[in-house]
Amino acid sequence: MPINELRKDYILDRWVVIAPQRRRRPSDFTENLEERKEKAICPFCPGNEYLTPPASLVYLVKDGELKKDDDKNGLRHKNWVVRCIPNLYPAFMPPNSDNALNPQFNHIYVSREALGYHEVLIESPNHDEHPSTARITQLIYVINALRDRFSFLITRDYVKYVSIFRNYGASAGASLSHAHAQIIAMPIVPKILWEENAVSKKYYEENGRCVFCDIISVEIKSKRFIWNNDGFVIFAPWASINPFEFWIFPKRHQSSILELTEDEV
Amino acid sequence: MPINELRKDYILDRWVVIAPQRRRRPSDFTENLEERKEKAICPFCPGNEYLTPPASLVYLVKDGELKKDDDKNGLRHKNWVVRCIPNLYPAFMPPNSDNALNPQFNHIYVSREALGYHEVLIESPNHDEHPSTARITQLIYVINALRDRFSFLITRDYVKYVSIFRNYGASAGASLSHAHAQIIAMPIVPKILWEENAVSKKYYEENGRCVFCDIISVEIKSKRFIWNNDGFVIFAPWASINPFEFWIFPKRHQSSILELTEDEV
Repeated sequence: MPINELRKDYILDRWVVIAPQRRRRPSDFTENLEERKEKAICPFCPGNEYLTPPASLVYLVKDGELKKDDDKNGLRHKNWVVRCIPNLYPAFMPPNSDNALNPQFNHIYVSREALGYHEVLIESPNHDEHPSTARITQLIYVINALRDRFSFLITRDYVKYVSIFRNYGASAGASLSHAHAQIIAMPIVPKILWEENAVSKKYYEENGRCVFCDIISVEIKSKRFIWNNDGFVIFAPWASINPFEFWIFPKRHQSSILELTEDEV
Repeated sequence: MPINELRKDYILDRWVVIAPQRRRRPSDFTENLEERKEKAICPFCPGNEYLTPPASLVYLVKDGELKKDDDKNGLRHKNWVVRCIPNLYPAFMPPNSDNALNPQFNHIYVSREALGYHEVLIESPNHDEHPSTARITQLIYVINALRDRFSFLITRDYVKYVSIFRNYGASAGASLSHAHAQIIAMPIVPKILWEENAVSKKYYEENGRCVFCDIISVEIKSKRFIWNNDGFVIFAPWASINPFEFWIFPKRHQSSILELTEDEV
């Protein structure tokens, strides 16, 4: 039986057990099949735009040219290639005059209003055009639309952090199967980022080098290496949290997707 | 629409969004039904003891008296009321002469052997006797057996922390549906406990009071209060991570289940 390992994350004080045999555990549960209810109306499919809030951004292609707009005056744009809408069930919301939560700073109860934005980026008019099978042109629309929303949201004065993520499948928490990503703009920076920041600064002071550059230089030659082009390196991290986890690192120093060049997109 | 809140944990720098409307999200996935494969043989059911490794502890009741033993010399005890066995697919294992992992302390790769124990506590001979429906006498056996294993494991010199947990249902990660808990003895103390420890020490220095006592004194009167007897208080925490999360706090200062009195069990 192979030896299990405890692996520490590159920079965080976070340990992971690598226990290869555990995947062979027996199971007496039946397989969960994720079947889409065929009869359900998908609110993200073309023709159903009125089932969702007005779009904050739509990409339209007319005569081979890309146009950007939003939904206003009761109108819903049709024939979009990418569409971004407010999440109907948001975790974060912009302030409005009807609501005002008194911040609580009791020594035990600390709370504040969850100010921010929670948007859904519908990645394609085609229900099943998920990234792994999507056309390259469509992926470029998606990345550019994410950048457009990112650059808008990050300039709001109560937004400190913008997170882009994607739940695929019911077991990952997705409630609709149409290809979509989520964008959350929040008023706090997650603690893990402060920690990453502090540790990478300390690393630079002690070694005179960027910790991420050092990780790239090692992983590009390791057995965890996956792929590599002029701009990016892809590898499986040393201390994965999830099965099949991989990281995409830019080779240039970049702190957000706003710094991507057109070529890199 | 109610206002969402960001809530900070009592003592940790960890924030949670409370967004009540999100439970109303629509879904086009069919319900996942967790059906046990009726034909599968359960290795935890009485009669199948030879399908598992020898028990490290069995509770036997003979003529109304409790006897404790383990499996040895190829024997497997029958007629047990509680049975504890090594996990066949352990995350942590005791050292053995065949294995030796050279600790790596490269500035990027840090790793060490996952020394420790990973055991399964079979809570009842009855397949479905989960805690919510179990007989009280059976629950007392379970708690005492957990204490017995805890007190043995914590004295191993490479064990720094013992974790008792329970996955219920396939979606929570359980691979077998027979009522069971897991015990993991590991060579590191999770970072979150260091943090809790540091913050509660600081709280004591600043306020002259125990932070957990202060939490109890507030939550026992709050709308999150659930239940209360001479020994314990049960409440839903201010900043829950999971739906239906609740905490059971002892009223006396206790740092582990070893400090429980017989009455409290």
